[in-house]
Amino acid sequence: MSLAIGPSDVAAAARRIAGIAHRTPVLTSATANARVGAELFFKCENLQRTGSFKFRGACNALSRFTPGQRKAGVLAFSSGNHAQAVALAARLLGMPAVIVMPEDAPSLKIEATRGYGAEVILYDRYTVDREVLGRRIADERGMTLVPPYDHADVMAGQGTAAAELIEEVGPLDLLLVCVGGGGLLSGCAVATRALSPQCRVFGVEPEAGNDVQQSLAAGHIVHIDVPRTIADGAQTQHAGTLTFPVIQSLVAGIETVSDAELVATMGFFAERMKLVVEPTGCLAAAAALHGKVGLADRRVGIIVSGGNVGVARYAALLGGELA
Amino acid sequence: MSLAIGPSDVAAAARRIAGIAHRTPVLTSATANARVGAELFFKCENLQRTGSFKFRGACNALSRFTPGQRKAGVLAFSSGNHAQAVALAARLLGMPAVIVMPEDAPSLKIEATRGYGAEVILYDRYTVDREVLGRRIADERGMTLVPPYDHADVMAGQGTAAAELIEEVGPLDLLLVCVGGGGLLSGCAVATRALSPQCRVFGVEPEAGNDVQQSLAAGHIVHIDVPRTIADGAQTQHAGTLTFPVIQSLVAGIETVSDAELVATMGFFAERMKLVVEPTGCLAAAAALHGKVGLADRRVGIIVSGGNVGVARYAALLGGELA
Repeated sequence: MSLAIGPSDVAAAARRIAGIAHRTPVLTSATANARVGAELFFKCENLQRTGSFKFRGACNALSRFTPGQRKAGVLAFSSGNHAQAVALAARLLGMPAVIVMPEDAPSLKIEATRGYGAEVILYDRYTVDREVLGRRIADERGMTLVPPYDHADVMAGQGTAAAELIEEVGPLDLLLVCVGGGGLLSGCAVATRALSPQCRVFGVEPEAGNDVQQSLAAGHIVHIDVPRTIADGAQTQHAGTLTFPVIQSLVAGIETVSDAELVATMGFFAERMKLVVEPTGCLAAAAALHGKVGLADRRVGIIVSGGNVGVARYAALLGGELA
Repeated sequence: MSLAIGPSDVAAAARRIAGIAHRTPVLTSATANARVGAELFFKCENLQRTGSFKFRGACNALSRFTPGQRKAGVLAFSSGNHAQAVALAARLLGMPAVIVMPEDAPSLKIEATRGYGAEVILYDRYTVDREVLGRRIADERGMTLVPPYDHADVMAGQGTAAAELIEEVGPLDLLLVCVGGGGLLSGCAVATRALSPQCRVFGVEPEAGNDVQQSLAAGHIVHIDVPRTIADGAQTQHAGTLTFPVIQSLVAGIETVSDAELVATMGFFAERMKLVVEPTGCLAAAAALHGKVGLADRRVGIIVSGGNVGVARYAALLGGELA
């Protein structure tokens, strides 16, 4: 079976999102390098517009809408970073957006999504099937649904993060990428294979939610219960039908980290790198800092996927409460 | 009286520190721009090596040591960012460093300074005159004292922050810079006058420690008691004899902000820009975000001076405790 995207799709995405998405900085830390005995390059997608890499995929997908699709607009289900990404991309591209969110989503995220100009439709997650609701709204309004990861244009857009990193710092030996549904990992793996062919790409999951690790072992997509982890962006129950074959073909393996390791890494980012990173955004760095992968003397890329965490929760986590 | 430094000193400093100091990123925030109706460019010196702009001045000053001075090394008094800056610059340039710190300085800062390879000499601030102690050690060991701000090479080094900002984003209408002893402000004012001559440069002090504002009004350097403010980097009691004339000549004025405005700005940086910024580093941005200077439709540079704040204290401040 051919893969959903190839390097030319990532290159085309890069051209489409240029000047709309930020070209995020790559930061280094002599302290981190000394600690792991390697050269680490942190691609800071927490500094991306809307605070996460999700803006890349949303921007690429919406850029490919036909004039008719643009007029009717876009619909997405999300209580997380994809919601804000689609909302802002829609506004910048001048199209209507509806985001379907559970009514108990954090009010901060609902407000942020509205702040980017989207119409937010709330539903009761205990009584309403969001897929049915979303389909109905999309059909009524002729809107196009953009899913958070299992979509070729979304995957290609996310791959631009790795492409920019390698363009800026040169070939890598290893690349570490967090995994939820696999959109970022699959896109980055495709970009890396083309731009730094010797580089081994690893995914990093929370210990409690290692469905992709299980899936690679099983040879098919494994579904799990909603995992209990502070990495809310990686609480997906299964990889996508488009992302998983890419991961199977191009990814060297999946490592896992604990929530305590994520909190320690969040503290490291705050104290030593002056960056606010959300728990999911700490996954790849946690694997490096806690010795999950042999790094000695290697040039290692680390995708810092996002920084969206409420200030109160962030302060509580930094202050040592794993609440 | 001629000023201590001119544009050619800043340009020479830029050449000396190139490849040693980071060229820090300039970040923007659509949210901040919308809030103030202007175009803001944040020069992120919290992402500088050692977590503050102080590394620029230290690096420039130490680079100019003669071979004899290098052999004997450098001495500094500081419990703050200058300590770490001198310690790391000395290590990178291969010379010994002694940092004289009060024995009740935060252990984190003492450890960080030792971590950069400096010898830390602690003193009891209630019974020992640090100037006398420092002079004695410097004399005994033949070491060269590098003060934190009132030194031409330090001032010229700090000015490279504004020079890089203007080189990257083009001419500005306004530049906002925090003020402690005036090293950063004076260096940036000199660089800005040369590179963006129409730009008005403002200093920003804590309300409780507005000695430079008072000094400009009085026409001479005013000394104040140690101010009570969370902006510990601006708890200086007076400007320098070298920095003040530059400020008098080139700075359009000084604005002040409250500690509550600093805390709100720290929250803004965390939530919207994903940056950890120490209270002093929030001064310039707080002036912009709280309407202290007319910004409408202007292109405004903001120096984010540093990010060194202990994680526990940071969490407490973000969590709403002005402790």
